[in-house]
Amino acid sequence: MTSQEKKKVLVFVANGSEEMEAVISIDILRRAQLEVSVVGIAAENSSFVTCSRGVKIVPDFIISNAFDIEKLVFDAIVVPGGLEGAKTISSNPDVQSLLASAHKSGKIVAAICAGPLAIKTANINKGGMITSHPVAKADLENEYNYQEDRVVIDNNVITSRGPGTAFLFALTIVEQLLGKEKRDEISLPMILASSL
Amino acid sequence: MTSQEKKKVLVFVANGSEEMEAVISIDILRRAQLEVSVVGIAAENSSFVTCSRGVKIVPDFIISNAFDIEKLVFDAIVVPGGLEGAKTISSNPDVQSLLASAHKSGKIVAAICAGPLAIKTANINKGGMITSHPVAKADLENEYNYQEDRVVIDNNVITSRGPGTAFLFALTIVEQLLGKEKRDEISLPMILASSL
Repeated sequence: MTSQEKKKVLVFVANGSEEMEAVISIDILRRAQLEVSVVGIAAENSSFVTCSRGVKIVPDFIISNAFDIEKLVFDAIVVPGGLEGAKTISSNPDVQSLLASAHKSGKIVAAICAGPLAIKTANINKGGMITSHPVAKADLENEYNYQEDRVVIDNNVITSRGPGTAFLFALTIVEQLLGKEKRDEISLPMILASSL
Repeated sequence: MTSQEKKKVLVFVANGSEEMEAVISIDILRRAQLEVSVVGIAAENSSFVTCSRGVKIVPDFIISNAFDIEKLVFDAIVVPGGLEGAKTISSNPDVQSLLASAHKSGKIVAAICAGPLAIKTANINKGGMITSHPVAKADLENEYNYQEDRVVIDNNVITSRGPGTAFLFALTIVEQLLGKEKRDEISLPMILASSL
């Protein structure tokens, strides 16, 4: 498979994003040879975002006034949790518009922990099945069919619950994009637990 | 507990370190209110390290000729895997000397995946029980009592196997430093799998 043929995934990060959820997603998607771009929402003069427990990550792109978000090409978008990060992603009009149009065009929109709040604000798949971290349940259950499974897939929307479900979340995205064989191939060397 | 009383942990990162193992360790130790310093081994003019799957992390300190490693105060050291990163940590004389003196003075030395190779080169706990990623087994089994448990504790040396055992690894360090109650307290909100 050449680089041109590789499927592409955007992973959004902002100040306050949960670093385990972001990094487990990025790493596992790259192990599957997906082309992952880490897209940061940060002040124009900052070269990194500071995640929820202080890990500083340098994104591949930083969205600012000078950045044309519409030029991004992708097959799936991932929104990690971390309440402050998820709120930033929920309140950025360009990112919200990208999420909504991605879902309308049949692309995968995936979110974990508090990340599903950004799916709600983008008005995606209302009435469908969703899950999230328990702290975000009250904000979601009135407008969605709220589930407590560790990962929920409904109409190209993949949602999950927290750092401890992040491996399962990322592997589910891999399976949806590339199939079960690729998921199994990359699972073995990671020495996963018997249940995820 | 005031800041002065907090136990301190160093987490080493270098180009090629496994980012999930580094970030899961840093995040979970900080959730336990341990004071974690991310210590990078990088070229003097670089502000970040590039991990094994391309995640760029800005360390809290960067070790270079100008940095006096002996001024670091800590209760435990963590060495993540990623073969290239582990080799850099194994071949840095200052870091090797720090690891050896840490173990001699009864501090915890913890390593995961290929990280235990840096324990061997530092001549720590030879003949004792150890584990690692399966790819590093051949390099360790002649000089250690090699185990295949997901986490092994022997004589203040904590070792583990890969990204999928990183939660268990980090929680074990928390329990050794702060007790089981703290481990249980931080486990619940992470929505961990039923087995780790």
